[in-house]
Amino acid sequence: MTTQSQILIKGGKVVNEDFSEMTDVYIEDGVISAVGSDLQVAAGTRVIDATDRLVLPGGIDTHTHMELSFMGTTAVDDFHTGTKAAFAGGTTMILDFVIPQKGCSLLEAYEQWRTTADPKVCCDYSLHMAVTWWDDTVKKEMETLVRDKGVNSFKMFMAYKDVFMLRDNELYAVFAQCKEIGAIAQVHAENGDLIAEGAKRMLSLGITGPEGHEMCRPEEVEAEATQRAITIAHAANCPLYVVHVMSKSAAKVVANARRNGRVVFGEPIAAGLGTDGTNYWHKDWAHAVGFVMGPPLRPDSSTPRYLMDLLDDLSVTGTDNCTFSVCQKALGKDDFTKIPNGVNGVEDRMSVIWEKGVHSGKMDENRFVAVTSTNAAKIFNLYPQKGRIAKGSDADLVIWDPEATRVISAKTHHQAVDYNIFEGMLCHGLPVVTISRGKVVYENGQLFTKPGMGRYIPRKPFSEFVYNRINQREKVGKPCAVCREPYTGEIISIAPKRS
Amino acid sequence: MTTQSQILIKGGKVVNEDFSEMTDVYIEDGVISAVGSDLQVAAGTRVIDATDRLVLPGGIDTHTHMELSFMGTTAVDDFHTGTKAAFAGGTTMILDFVIPQKGCSLLEAYEQWRTTADPKVCCDYSLHMAVTWWDDTVKKEMETLVRDKGVNSFKMFMAYKDVFMLRDNELYAVFAQCKEIGAIAQVHAENGDLIAEGAKRMLSLGITGPEGHEMCRPEEVEAEATQRAITIAHAANCPLYVVHVMSKSAAKVVANARRNGRVVFGEPIAAGLGTDGTNYWHKDWAHAVGFVMGPPLRPDSSTPRYLMDLLDDLSVTGTDNCTFSVCQKALGKDDFTKIPNGVNGVEDRMSVIWEKGVHSGKMDENRFVAVTSTNAAKIFNLYPQKGRIAKGSDADLVIWDPEATRVISAKTHHQAVDYNIFEGMLCHGLPVVTISRGKVVYENGQLFTKPGMGRYIPRKPFSEFVYNRINQREKVGKPCAVCREPYTGEIISIAPKRS
Amino acid sequence: MTTQSQILIKGGKVVNEDFSEMTDVYIEDGVISAVGSDLQVAAGTRVIDATDRLVLPGGIDTHTHMELSFMGTTAVDDFHTGTKAAFAGGTTMILDFVIPQKGCSLLEAYEQWRTTADPKVCCDYSLHMAVTWWDDTVKKEMETLVRDKGVNSFKMFMAYKDVFMLRDNELYAVFAQCKEIGAIAQVHAENGDLIAEGAKRMLSLGITGPEGHEMCRPEEVEAEATQRAITIAHAANCPLYVVHVMSKSAAKVVANARRNGRVVFGEPIAAGLGTDGTNYWHKDWAHAVGFVMGPPLRPDSSTPRYLMDLLDDLSVTGTDNCTFSVCQKALGKDDFTKIPNGVNGVEDRMSVIWEKGVHSGKMDENRFVAVTSTNAAKIFNLYPQKGRIAKGSDADLVIWDPEATRVISAKTHHQAVDYNIFEGMLCHGLPVVTISRGKVVYENGQLFTKPGMGRYIPRKPFSEFVYNRINQREKVGKPCAVCREPYTGEIISIAPKRS
Amino acid sequence: MTTQSQILIKGGKVVNEDFSEMTDVYIEDGVISAVGSDLQVAAGTRVIDATDRLVLPGGIDTHTHMELSFMGTTAVDDFHTGTKAAFAGGTTMILDFVIPQKGCSLLEAYEQWRTTADPKVCCDYSLHMAVTWWDDTVKKEMETLVRDKGVNSFKMFMAYKDVFMLRDNELYAVFAQCKEIGAIAQVHAENGDLIAEGAKRMLSLGITGPEGHEMCRPEEVEAEATQRAITIAHAANCPLYVVHVMSKSAAKVVANARRNGRVVFGEPIAAGLGTDGTNYWHKDWAHAVGFVMGPPLRPDSSTPRYLMDLLDDLSVTGTDNCTFSVCQKALGKDDFTKIPNGVNGVEDRMSVIWEKGVHSGKMDENRFVAVTSTNAAKIFNLYPQKGRIAKGSDADLVIWDPEATRVISAKTHHQAVDYNIFEGMLCHGLPVVTISRGKVVYENGQLFTKPGMGRYIPRKPFSEFVYNRINQREKVGKPCAVCREPYTGEIISIAPKRS
Repeated sequence: MTTQSQILIKGGKVVNEDFSEMTDVYIEDGVISAVGSDLQVAAGTRVIDATDRLVLPGGIDTHTHMELSFMGTTAVDDFHTGTKAAFAGGTTMILDFVIPQKGCSLLEAYEQWRTTADPKVCCDYSLHMAVTWWDDTVKKEMETLVRDKGVNSFKMFMAYKDVFMLRDNELYAVFAQCKEIGAIAQVHAENGDLIAEGAKRMLSLGITGPEGHEMCRPEEVEAEATQRAITIAHAANCPLYVVHVMSKSAAKVVANARRNGRVVFGEPIAAGLGTDGTNYWHKDWAHAVGFVMGPPLRPDSSTPRYLMDLLDDLSVTGTDNCTFSVCQKALGKDDFTKIPNGVNGVEDRMSVIWEKGVHSGKMDENRFVAVTSTNAAKIFNLYPQKGRIAKGSDADLVIWDPEATRVISAKTHHQAVDYNIFEGMLCHGLPVVTISRGKVVYENGQLFTKPGMGRYIPRKPFSEFVYNRINQREKVGKPCAVCREPYTGEIISIAPKRS
Repeated sequence: MTTQSQILIKGGKVVNEDFSEMTDVYIEDGVISAVGSDLQVAAGTRVIDATDRLVLPGGIDTHTHMELSFMGTTAVDDFHTGTKAAFAGGTTMILDFVIPQKGCSLLEAYEQWRTTADPKVCCDYSLHMAVTWWDDTVKKEMETLVRDKGVNSFKMFMAYKDVFMLRDNELYAVFAQCKEIGAIAQVHAENGDLIAEGAKRMLSLGITGPEGHEMCRPEEVEAEATQRAITIAHAANCPLYVVHVMSKSAAKVVANARRNGRVVFGEPIAAGLGTDGTNYWHKDWAHAVGFVMGPPLRPDSSTPRYLMDLLDDLSVTGTDNCTFSVCQKALGKDDFTKIPNGVNGVEDRMSVIWEKGVHSGKMDENRFVAVTSTNAAKIFNLYPQKGRIAKGSDADLVIWDPEATRVISAKTHHQAVDYNIFEGMLCHGLPVVTISRGKVVYENGQLFTKPGMGRYIPRKPFSEFVYNRINQREKVGKPCAVCREPYTGEIISIAPKRS
Repeated sequence: MTTQSQILIKGGKVVNEDFSEMTDVYIEDGVISAVGSDLQVAAGTRVIDATDRLVLPGGIDTHTHMELSFMGTTAVDDFHTGTKAAFAGGTTMILDFVIPQKGCSLLEAYEQWRTTADPKVCCDYSLHMAVTWWDDTVKKEMETLVRDKGVNSFKMFMAYKDVFMLRDNELYAVFAQCKEIGAIAQVHAENGDLIAEGAKRMLSLGITGPEGHEMCRPEEVEAEATQRAITIAHAANCPLYVVHVMSKSAAKVVANARRNGRVVFGEPIAAGLGTDGTNYWHKDWAHAVGFVMGPPLRPDSSTPRYLMDLLDDLSVTGTDNCTFSVCQKALGKDDFTKIPNGVNGVEDRMSVIWEKGVHSGKMDENRFVAVTSTNAAKIFNLYPQKGRIAKGSDADLVIWDPEATRVISAKTHHQAVDYNIFEGMLCHGLPVVTISRGKVVYENGQLFTKPGMGRYIPRKPFSEFVYNRINQREKVGKPCAVCREPYTGEIISIAPKRS
Repeated sequence: MTTQSQILIKGGKVVNEDFSEMTDVYIEDGVISAVGSDLQVAAGTRVIDATDRLVLPGGIDTHTHMELSFMGTTAVDDFHTGTKAAFAGGTTMILDFVIPQKGCSLLEAYEQWRTTADPKVCCDYSLHMAVTWWDDTVKKEMETLVRDKGVNSFKMFMAYKDVFMLRDNELYAVFAQCKEIGAIAQVHAENGDLIAEGAKRMLSLGITGPEGHEMCRPEEVEAEATQRAITIAHAANCPLYVVHVMSKSAAKVVANARRNGRVVFGEPIAAGLGTDGTNYWHKDWAHAVGFVMGPPLRPDSSTPRYLMDLLDDLSVTGTDNCTFSVCQKALGKDDFTKIPNGVNGVEDRMSVIWEKGVHSGKMDENRFVAVTSTNAAKIFNLYPQKGRIAKGSDADLVIWDPEATRVISAKTHHQAVDYNIFEGMLCHGLPVVTISRGKVVYENGQLFTKPGMGRYIPRKPFSEFVYNRINQREKVGKPCAVCREPYTGEIISIAPKRS
């Protein structure tokens, strides 16, 4: 691993969300200390030539589940392998989820997850907290997490009936609390009741393979829940973040709500942008099973292009990276409801979005930065510490070669999982150097990391990007009563109830 | 009351859903025995001159609550006054609702409602059954009601939390049963959890007047539930009928679902087509309170025109006629949640729709017949006994003067309630003669009725209009599994759960 | 050919737009004289057993170009072979187009086309008139055609620049005249300027094959023109009929306009409902070229399903039947702009729509009748002479076996063209007997026709189905001025123009 | 006027598009030389205390017509009074239009307009060029203007038939040229043919007042042209900018096109965001006439809120400032077609958008900066020289007091026109100091300007913000032919044309 504490990146095109510029970047002690030409640099500064390259803010993956224990087994990418793979793909920060069991303490779960992650994690990271049950204890723990633990986002499940699912009244209560404490509410938006019924039905029809996974929860099940979550959040004047938007109809619901002024964000993921649900119908079970995740990828093969068209509007991208090898997926060999859910993505997200978004001409390099890094930093109140190349920001950045190409393959990827859902995809645009807090962690195909080098990044509540509008609406939009003379007419007596 | 059992309606323009024609109609023994020119008629036949008049199938009001006991008091229009008023407005059939309390027998509630209605009702009527709770008893009673009692429609509430509201899993179960027994599922579509929260909030802000009733349940609360119901019904392959579609957004949800091939019908009501929710903000409490119903009328004053534009697509119209006089409404003088919900409409529906629909040029006389009578008859399997002027159909018809006008007023209406939500509306187009099963029941402003002269009309299940597509889809659209070689690779052992 | 002038169709299910009924049909002298059970019939009446069969109104193909001379060659199906094929498919009436050259008399073109058609045509037919240029002569001839020649529909081209295309001001003028004389305006909706530019561009890029035909006029070129035509028609308060709606986006434009209350109809065609534009990319030129028509079929393979979902809303179906054999299509061997445009359909329309619409569960048999026959009859003022099975209607009907199947093939079809765009399609639902004005013209796979047996059917203007709303709007919707005091303030003098 | 060439703005919250920050801004010689805390400043630097204030990039008004001669008279705000008023409102740059007559040289018109503007203009400015006719001369002049004169935007009229209007084929040609030379195409999108017909009709019905102006060109006339322009631009792969988006339907067309990936921008204007077309129906002619502009404001009073909701998506705001006093408007006293078109806005735009957008809670301060300044700078290739507060940018900025309020009135405004369309509007948020290229030009309600102090700002073509996607699509999206064996079958001979 490089040990220089000064790096000068010379001759590249620095790409921020708003603008690209041919300029140099000087890094000292993990932070960007200057952006400009003819910079003064310390002796011994390492100079990296970025001629013909782009210099991008490091990617932020908003949605990972490293080493998650789920459905009887544990994801093979842990915080170590997973975040090394992230570096190899140009991602320098992840947001992982703490998921307490129903009835269990959020704070304890948080501490436990920190204990798991801290010794292994290579990149900076932060934690979302799942709220899987509801009472006053939970309410208070949410407040503590925001105040003391740097958590400003809480995810609720509308799926996973009887396990994690909350009902509408509970969602309203959690959303109201989020708004009170300045957090952003996140939802996994699928109708859990319908999934349960659908799964029963498919199994009863003898459909046990991965295709049943999609058929029991078609996209309208996702779109419905998305609409419902937005309606509830609006009733509570709470900002909403829909994780893993997987379908055209759900994406449209989010985009339409934004048009109607709702403070809502949607998070398509690499899987949904780069591949599709026709794979569930693949004749080879071992192939098909690899794509099983919830909500499922959609068999409508125009979905990825559609999501990409709406990406700038939806705002952010994650991966839901939660990797199980085929022998683990095989737990659901005879019953799709037993297949551990999850796909890869943390390593390939940046490449997939560049290929499908920038190379295709759908978005420019600046919007690429927005949707892979900057918007996430703004939403989760990390900006401009993260998500921007500017003086004072953390030196998390990627030198990107827009002309280079690679073919994604499990044979060459850095993740621990034994397949890759993007196998065979030709990608234009590659990270050639990744820098994490001022250290070169990936270069020439080599990783320079050590477990635990990543920091936990606490986040403050009331992100301005999210809450300015919320608070202003609270202030100017308070409902008020009509001023009237009291009614003085006759009033009937209450009739005894007719039996 | 006229006692002729033969009537010849001469010289009018007979208007059916598909076509209008200058022709005569001959009625014998309560049934239309001939339509044509130069008809042979019995001696003593009464001849009614319909020159320059239209002859329409009598209106069918799909949604009434005569003498309903609700919120501590009883609707003032009972089956007698209510159905007399219906005649005066050109409506010759109503469908009322049986609403058993949670835990109570549907069959008993049905019998009780028959006992209430039969001695009083003047027009033909039929009964929808509300399903307000769910277990196997209910399931069996539904079957009995369909088989033995002529009920083919069941309404479920998504509002009225803790009183009538069903959760999504219960809705799915009821819908699945409806589909099994050939009934149509109906929903009151509003999110009951959000209404409960909204009401608490409005009261806590000191908003106690009728405007609070709308503010606690804005239209997105209706649109959300509508979308959800459609999604659940589709999952169960069950036809759906959304009662009282009150808002632009809910209407759009229904219309879009129809475009996507869903078997769904929407029922705007006279109130929503003829007036709007700005009335809740009226300075006179006694005025404002009269419009309180659920879902509420909408303050967006373009709503009635919008609903009228979509009316042909939504298919049918009712009234939700459930009338409480001001002294009854006054139970909610200090708290809008205590205002008995309901408005008038059974008498004025035909005139309001003619005025806003036909006179305005939005629809022609044939679509008028469709949305006020024929479509209802088709959906509820009464066609062509009801809803058409043709040989063999029941002689329920109205002679309509398209040039005459009247101004709606509580002073002149025939309903028992002491106000009218359409007060002051000028209507072109009036019923001049109403005939119910071959008897003149309304003529020259006079009613000729006697209590109990109406019949209960049983309805068969599996209406072809509704079920042809449902059944065909069941047959050709069955999900099927991918045919695959079994997976023979390694399978991991289930890990002990991480605590 | 059968010569009975009385036929009794017994035991079938008679299907009209509104309703199906097990009943008998009695035909005398070309007309339906009774529908019912236990009918009195004349001695010698032929009895056709329709047990387990449906009895449908004969199909009306709203859009054919028999023996059209176009692009240097003449369509191979003439009025004789084309209408025989129609019978074999269950279609008993066609509406063909008279297309005068720019500057030529409409009346002369009409007479010439009658002269061409009358001696050959087997089924009843009627004629639309194309308006390809505009001046006062044309305006007057339109009036004459309506008054004296039974034409109530005029088609204008927004495509075919410099040949048939009218500009917006001309369209407005023709639409205004249509409205004046009670005709319906029809448009071929594609932007002719963009097609011309697109064609130049494709050829310049070396794209000469059939795929270039679609690429030079993608669906937004159609959707744009559709929106424009609707806007112009609305400005003139003229009813509009969009012929051959070929794309999802154009269909959506029409459906949305209808929702907004526009009096507009859309005509998908058999080709667009049964196949798609991926065929233009077929590796075999002779295959690909067969699908060339304008507007083109679309490469988005979800188009047919989408059009079918909207079919009931769009209202009618035709075929644009205009058949050129491959050796004729070969005129455009090296240049797609020289390929004679046109496809088959007149024979297969009914089967294709049954298969894709009814068999699939998207529509029921009644809506099938509506979109293949009844709606066309209503729009073009032929109802109930055509489009309904009722006493007094023309005895044009089809006995349909919903269980029978066939595979469409050029080898077995009755059209003169040497290929079939639906080749290989398995269809459930077949005509087994076709009756035209009381004569069996097709039975057991055999045709019983003679050239010229079809009649020309004149049509009256101001179809109520179309014009009731138009006229009412004219009456109640007239714009009116604000009543104001005159302005009496200062007025500046006109400045001399700055050069 | 202040003469300090150094200014330090201390203690304010610096608001850029992406982020707000409490920091200082140091200005030297017209340029921002530093942004940060504890900045080194020269002796004699003027320090402006911005505590509790926002420091914003100066507004850019994308659409003005100073001293335009139009419809027989000349706008009363010239480049001097108009740009002083701009300063008073916080706007520091305008883009005005050069509009050559049909047949006249673009270059000469450009030079003339420079001659008019340069001696008077107070703020920096740039020029769009209108293309009102088309031939090869025009094509060449466009190139010259881009290369030598700093013009990178060309506006075409789809309205003003026979005066400025271009037909679709001409639009295509201009768009193709724009794309070739790296300019952005702008359109005034209304259907000129329909306006001409509509105006004739209204006058013929005796409607001569300002309401006729709207009634002859309702919003669908705008939406149609907008859709058409987008379609044509896409065919030419040319970026499009729709000036003055005035209606909900047109805004929706633009927003939908953006969702579909079109490179298109929409420009709502202050008038459309702050008031509405109900004013045309005002009983006082002198009031009503003041709002006449083209396209008109819309009578649907929900329009401003709708446009505001879509503003972030549409991207930019201008004013179409073109002011005629009432005595000039009176030229159309008896005929609305003679009313000089135009409204005020250059002074009030920032306040109106703050009030309706930020104060209402629809957008935050950062999006305010985006839509009033930054996006315009990006689109027209002025960024980051304009539109951002950053080292190296022009020192055009505004110190904004978000708590202060004012009431807009003609009595107090700085424009030359004698009325104000926003008369009486209470605005929260005011500019307290405006700085133009490092000079305080407005402070404490006083202006410190001199005529001609503003510079003409040339703009380079191929703005990356606009052209990155266009160029990439050109590169990767080139159409290609299917590779096929040549057709070797029979080919018919061309038939002689049937007469």
